[in-house]
Amino acid sequence: MYTYIQLKSFAYNVFVKMGCPAEQAEIASTALVSADLRGVDSHGVARLSGYVRLWEANRINPVPNIKIIHETPSTAVVDGDAGLGLVVGPTAMKIAMDKARNVGTGWVSVKNSNHFGIAGFHSMLALNEDMIGISMTNASPLVAPTWSKERMLGTNPIAVAIPAGEEPPFVADFATTTAANGKLEILQRKNENTPTGWVQDKDGNPSIDAFEVKNGGSLLPLGGDREHGSHKGYCLGSIVDIFSAVLSGASYGPWAPPFVSFLPVADDMPGEGLGHFFGAMRVDAFQPKDNFKANMDNWIKRFRSAQSIEGQEAVLVPGDPERIIEKERIKTGFELLKPVENDLKMLAEKFEIQL
Amino acid sequence: MYTYIQLKSFAYNVFVKMGCPAEQAEIASTALVSADLRGVDSHGVARLSGYVRLWEANRINPVPNIKIIHETPSTAVVDGDAGLGLVVGPTAMKIAMDKARNVGTGWVSVKNSNHFGIAGFHSMLALNEDMIGISMTNASPLVAPTWSKERMLGTNPIAVAIPAGEEPPFVADFATTTAANGKLEILQRKNENTPTGWVQDKDGNPSIDAFEVKNGGSLLPLGGDREHGSHKGYCLGSIVDIFSAVLSGASYGPWAPPFVSFLPVADDMPGEGLGHFFGAMRVDAFQPKDNFKANMDNWIKRFRSAQSIEGQEAVLVPGDPERIIEKERIKTGFELLKPVENDLKMLAEKFEIQL
Repeated sequence: MYTYIQLKSFAYNVFVKMGCPAEQAEIASTALVSADLRGVDSHGVARLSGYVRLWEANRINPVPNIKIIHETPSTAVVDGDAGLGLVVGPTAMKIAMDKARNVGTGWVSVKNSNHFGIAGFHSMLALNEDMIGISMTNASPLVAPTWSKERMLGTNPIAVAIPAGEEPPFVADFATTTAANGKLEILQRKNENTPTGWVQDKDGNPSIDAFEVKNGGSLLPLGGDREHGSHKGYCLGSIVDIFSAVLSGASYGPWAPPFVSFLPVADDMPGEGLGHFFGAMRVDAFQPKDNFKANMDNWIKRFRSAQSIEGQEAVLVPGDPERIIEKERIKTGFELLKPVENDLKMLAEKFEIQL
Repeated sequence: MYTYIQLKSFAYNVFVKMGCPAEQAEIASTALVSADLRGVDSHGVARLSGYVRLWEANRINPVPNIKIIHETPSTAVVDGDAGLGLVVGPTAMKIAMDKARNVGTGWVSVKNSNHFGIAGFHSMLALNEDMIGISMTNASPLVAPTWSKERMLGTNPIAVAIPAGEEPPFVADFATTTAANGKLEILQRKNENTPTGWVQDKDGNPSIDAFEVKNGGSLLPLGGDREHGSHKGYCLGSIVDIFSAVLSGASYGPWAPPFVSFLPVADDMPGEGLGHFFGAMRVDAFQPKDNFKANMDNWIKRFRSAQSIEGQEAVLVPGDPERIIEKERIKTGFELLKPVENDLKMLAEKFEIQL
């Protein structure tokens, strides 16, 4: 078992060894370990060695000059200078919030970045200032559009965080596929099959093999197939791709640079690096703050008390599951899977730091 | 068979007979019949008698004083004064576009409105000015959250329209449920069952009965069940509800006023009427216009040429299916279902106008 502080310090030390300035290593490690905290284990310290390999492949710049290259009062395009998405993300989100402070809302599209951890972390930065936070990102192409067998989109997540009053905030954070890649990895470890509608094989046949994506198959857009609305998941993933990458000048669609360093980046990339999109809306740009919060409390209470189906769990509000896990893990600590622990030990040895 | 002009003039005349000023009847009929044009038959002239019944129940004000009640440089809250959503929607979208012209983007949340037709119509208004248009609305509660048997949300659609250069625009317009209510109605007419994951019965059991929602059952969020990601559809529907109704002061969640006039509105409504949310983002608030359009053309061409699965149709880009139908219907005219035609004849008689 590891404590939150142990994992965060370890990630901090790794980022410092990669050459990140202290302040940026602090932001990056907070963003990274927020995934472990919220139960999204696939996006936390389990990814640390992946970031290191990208850095070794010269695809991550540890001392980026993150800058605004175009702006209006409510918008900006940010060049991440190939920095860690874990650093570029919060920097861009802060710009969105600054703009919201001035003109009500702020919208920032980012190019030339890398994987930014969990989308929810960035959107939640807005909560403390009574703003609604929105974040999304494109990602390694693993997802086939409806009727296609070709990997054209990433799991392209969307996160929306909305402040409440006495109730905890509403936080939605989800991949626009039926299931995120991390869910597949869990089944792979257990040697179990997937439900229907998660994956297809390389020829586009429906499959329940959890290893399908490793064999040239694809993840499927939310909905699974046309009859169950996969064209809607395809729409959502496309919107994320266009807002994150076409608006910013990043590399989009099948050209999005892959997270794994052993895959080459396309040599005909139409843009620079990965793209993100952030939004911040001041609640009081619409309603008196207290009024909005009272209504959000009412909304949340009403949904949490919706009649549940006999034999099923109680109805949850988006953000509930992650908050329950976070509360527990802060108390009990973090149990790492053996391969993840070995990965961290390898990094400890490599960088001559303590785990 | 009817021509576009015939249907539009008829709708125009009905709205005028309801007391709408000529200019508003023009906007409303254009918005309404755009649904028939784009193949969303459930939201076009088939709904005309429904609007009339709401007007007869004093729930639609034909001469609304639509006004901004709060604003910042990039946001506004609009009071629709119980007007037709078909008029309130374009008015609010215009305000969003005006703001975008000034500060890059504009975001308008609307209260005290009614059903606004198809979401896509409103978002597409932005295209002519080289803006990205976004529209969403809450709606009659028919959808149960994951694990619930209670109807808490509407089919709450999201539409996003993105301009391109030589290619036609990207237009996504979809309900946040597995299937829209209109799809159910088609199956009801044919006396066919639904696929799995579309509906559940009043106790929350999975069902394939197309009449289930009429018998107290619910539509299901996109995903269908937990295993297939219905919590994501539930998140999307909730975000639409909060942006449209909590941000504006409209009635949200299970309190959203029903479209059908024979159902009473809740007497403990937390807000006024139905809510919408509109966004407009000037493309050149992010990228030089021509650059953005060239990249959108590239995006669209690349996706349309994605490898399709053997035996399946070619891969489409969001907006393709509706544009194909529109092109055809402009040529061939519109064939109305018998009950819809009878409905219009009834209205023709009632208002003493020509069909």
